[in-house]
Amino acid sequence: MGKRVAVVLAGCGVYDGSEIHEASAVLVHLSREGAQVEVFAPNISQMHVVDHMKGQPTQEQRNVLVESARIARGNIRDLAELDVKGLDALIIPGGFGVAKNLSTWATQGKNCTICREVEDVLRAFHAAQKPIGLCCISPVLAAKLFPGCEVTVGHDTECERWPYAQTAVSLRELGCHHVPSSVTEAHVDTRHRLVTTCAFMCNAPIHEIHDGIGRMVHEVLRLA
Amino acid sequence: MGKRVAVVLAGCGVYDGSEIHEASAVLVHLSREGAQVEVFAPNISQMHVVDHMKGQPTQEQRNVLVESARIARGNIRDLAELDVKGLDALIIPGGFGVAKNLSTWATQGKNCTICREVEDVLRAFHAAQKPIGLCCISPVLAAKLFPGCEVTVGHDTECERWPYAQTAVSLRELGCHHVPSSVTEAHVDTRHRLVTTCAFMCNAPIHEIHDGIGRMVHEVLRLA
Repeated sequence: MGKRVAVVLAGCGVYDGSEIHEASAVLVHLSREGAQVEVFAPNISQMHVVDHMKGQPTQEQRNVLVESARIARGNIRDLAELDVKGLDALIIPGGFGVAKNLSTWATQGKNCTICREVEDVLRAFHAAQKPIGLCCISPVLAAKLFPGCEVTVGHDTECERWPYAQTAVSLRELGCHHVPSSVTEAHVDTRHRLVTTCAFMCNAPIHEIHDGIGRMVHEVLRLA
Repeated sequence: MGKRVAVVLAGCGVYDGSEIHEASAVLVHLSREGAQVEVFAPNISQMHVVDHMKGQPTQEQRNVLVESARIARGNIRDLAELDVKGLDALIIPGGFGVAKNLSTWATQGKNCTICREVEDVLRAFHAAQKPIGLCCISPVLAAKLFPGCEVTVGHDTECERWPYAQTAVSLRELGCHHVPSSVTEAHVDTRHRLVTTCAFMCNAPIHEIHDGIGRMVHEVLRLA
């Protein structure tokens, strides 16, 4: 029997949901390692819908669970139904949806609140000492909930390769230890059982992001 | 300089657009092999929008180019701007969007019509003897336009593993040669410079689909 892993999505599309290629990489690597996957998303409205051609919000309204079902090919459940008892690990891919739908990080930074169901699930896995894998912007959720934890979002000096490096500074201000890393690496916080990788926080070729997420998935399953 | 490859999308989501994991696998493998990628989609309305939780159409309207931009992370152009002269190969991932938006295969089967811009692009690459990679349901486009070509959509006998096997029968009725294959294989028609793999026509683990698409991408680049 493979390890049972919950994957929590935040919509479908980098600018208002889960980053599609990060989510796909998580599912590909979990499948390759023989894990049993259950996909969840909160049944809530998206903060907004972004036209990904223009990079601008539209007037539409979409639901996080319904849009996440596109990535899950329909095989998805309401996050409210997640029961940590039947699961060995949790993974949350990145994308702005994490900062817009799963939390208010996009508008409030380190003063953000986290969606109640998402916070409950993170605290439940953490309390049960079951590993949590986070990539891209998702490590902010751990930094907010688990003071003193170690995470990586890549590098902390902004440049063309690291356009979101300021995030690392905010994580330090939250009292967490930011560990610099390259896009193909994952950092393991053994004490908190957290595995993080920077993914699209780095302006890198997509196959390097795919490989970094493979590293993260591997370390999560090793801890599970 | 890497090979220049056009990827044509059909929306974002297996039931009304491009299959997300197939599209992502195409981009990951092209990146790994050092290709330069340009992503395109037709600027047309989707046939319909499907709620991927329920598997049922909704009353919404969405645009194929705008939704495809979710997969392309905004880096996409109108298919009308594609110029075959500057490109070495063409790849079209699968998903019902190919049969609903790029053609009328979903409703008319072998009597379908193909979206004008898509047909023009396929004929232009074919006439220039530049390779075309197709997966999942996309080979029906080649079968319709290039009589006598060899393609694979997997197997031709319906069962739990091959839920869409009837497609192979329709392809034969169109006068094309269907070559049975497993999910991790790709078939190369050297004369027509077509490379096909069955992808999600097979009810297989997602990493096997990822690997089959890797095979297809590799063969396309070898021919380019």
